[in-house]
Amino acid sequence: MSLTLEKIFEAKNRIAPYTTRTPLIRLEKLDEYLGCQVYLKAECMQITGAFKLRGAVNKIRMLTPEQLSCGIVAASSGNHGKAVAYTAKKLGAKATIVMPYTAPAIKVNAIKELGAEVVQCETSERFDVAERICGEKNATMVPPYNDEEIMAGQGTAGIEILEQCPEIDTIIVPVSGGGLIGGVSTAVKGMDNSVKVYGAEPAALPRYSASLAAGKPVKVEQKKSIADALVSQMPGDQCYPYVAANVDGFFDVEDEYLLKAWKLLLTEGKIFCEPSSAITVGAVLQGLAKVKKDEKVCFLISGGSAGLDQLKVLEDVTI
Amino acid sequence: MSLTLEKIFEAKNRIAPYTTRTPLIRLEKLDEYLGCQVYLKAECMQITGAFKLRGAVNKIRMLTPEQLSCGIVAASSGNHGKAVAYTAKKLGAKATIVMPYTAPAIKVNAIKELGAEVVQCETSERFDVAERICGEKNATMVPPYNDEEIMAGQGTAGIEILEQCPEIDTIIVPVSGGGLIGGVSTAVKGMDNSVKVYGAEPAALPRYSASLAAGKPVKVEQKKSIADALVSQMPGDQCYPYVAANVDGFFDVEDEYLLKAWKLLLTEGKIFCEPSSAITVGAVLQGLAKVKKDEKVCFLISGGSAGLDQLKVLEDVTI
Repeated sequence: MSLTLEKIFEAKNRIAPYTTRTPLIRLEKLDEYLGCQVYLKAECMQITGAFKLRGAVNKIRMLTPEQLSCGIVAASSGNHGKAVAYTAKKLGAKATIVMPYTAPAIKVNAIKELGAEVVQCETSERFDVAERICGEKNATMVPPYNDEEIMAGQGTAGIEILEQCPEIDTIIVPVSGGGLIGGVSTAVKGMDNSVKVYGAEPAALPRYSASLAAGKPVKVEQKKSIADALVSQMPGDQCYPYVAANVDGFFDVEDEYLLKAWKLLLTEGKIFCEPSSAITVGAVLQGLAKVKKDEKVCFLISGGSAGLDQLKVLEDVTI
Repeated sequence: MSLTLEKIFEAKNRIAPYTTRTPLIRLEKLDEYLGCQVYLKAECMQITGAFKLRGAVNKIRMLTPEQLSCGIVAASSGNHGKAVAYTAKKLGAKATIVMPYTAPAIKVNAIKELGAEVVQCETSERFDVAERICGEKNATMVPPYNDEEIMAGQGTAGIEILEQCPEIDTIIVPVSGGGLIGGVSTAVKGMDNSVKVYGAEPAALPRYSASLAAGKPVKVEQKKSIADALVSQMPGDQCYPYVAANVDGFFDVEDEYLLKAWKLLLTEGKIFCEPSSAITVGAVLQGLAKVKKDEKVCFLISGGSAGLDQLKVLEDVTI
């Protein structure tokens, strides 16, 4: 465990030229719906549309010129792949993104437009294929979360939240493998130990609740959830110790409340995020996060990868 | 002409308990699309969903207890009606909102839920009906824009923009009757005469471009536009002198570019505003607003009254 607040501050300087300091939006209009003072950390407004850029830029900027010249590889059909392709383009490196055959053409083309090479394979083989390409090219793998340099980059969002509003009482973070909440909780607790940090994960995939109960990373059964960016079955072994040390608790959110939260954010909050990012607000709507009227609660809106065609599912949802 | 910066500052204090200081969002993600440094003044996140609340609260809070006890009346099926009903509820006054028979049930019910009485009539009769009710009840009419106290309240958005970012170079404002831009331009020029203020109006209803060319308020032909909140055929006579004195120019925006702008704000900017509010961004996309890379441009996003059912129109729009 070598991730420290100092390293996250170093990452903040390192990523500054290629990322944006996303707005912390005080959204008073939602206070009456959520029963607290609502703040959104809008990573959906990050340059590539999600917090993943922070980790990718930190990792890739730490490579030597020799490593960069051999290229970088990532296995991802989503926000991480886009972040790596974008960073490689900006730094003049060659990126190879391994994507499943099932990835929509629009996502494959978006990655290609950023100048990356796309290699498609079966979903189950994607990490093996990425490893093989790394070996062949002597290229560097950029993992999506299970890496301390990735966590350091992702944790910069936590520093920004407290810089933008030092009076924040509570931060709720969407969780999958644990890179974002590992970095954010390390940063936030290092800056102000009185700030509470909670994770929200799909009730269908409660990998952190289950692991913390067991006292070690455990794997949960793969089940479907509307939170299509929060699909890890198991905590990253690099992330788990930071989460166990720093996070105040987890909320296991049902899809029903995630959908209400997504609709609330869009129709009343006027923010169009990806469904996974609404899980933090869902934790309040489901009654899991017990917030108070005067409590300043920051909901980390992790990304905005959602298309208009996905909104049909909201038609019959009541807030 | 008695509207001054000082009166707008007084309005700012007066409206503070019932309105929110909406966020000024630095949206760097859109810089590459618009060719400038993008800021959004997000009035779509105002408590009732639009800037109209600022004017309604200022006007209604200036009434005497006797006037308040006789009630208030407004003719509006949209943001203004909602703002007046909300303010009346907060101040314990009785509101009557005159709405056309054609108003959607969802809008009628929203006004009723705020405790207001709704009177429905033919669209063409709505102002006469509202005047008649005022006379019968000795109630006070709250006009949507053509009133200096309404303009003072609406102008508070301008003060906030410069307080939130004193380095703003340019502000572009959606325009209908001219209350918002009349107030905002008076505030902004009073605070910093070097800041440019432009109006954006539908090309189908160029009432300000036509009036400024004629040197007096003129009426333009009623035509259809996607900008369903910007339907005035003529400048308000109370608004016109302030606009003529303070505004640097007008952009007459085609629906084609308004739709591109609306889609851009939603899918890339992640902001779900009403179509009328996207007209400012449309002015840039159409090439009317000549912005520069280092110019800090604030787009005033006036409201968020749009439902998910309206988004079908965006399916075939290319950004």
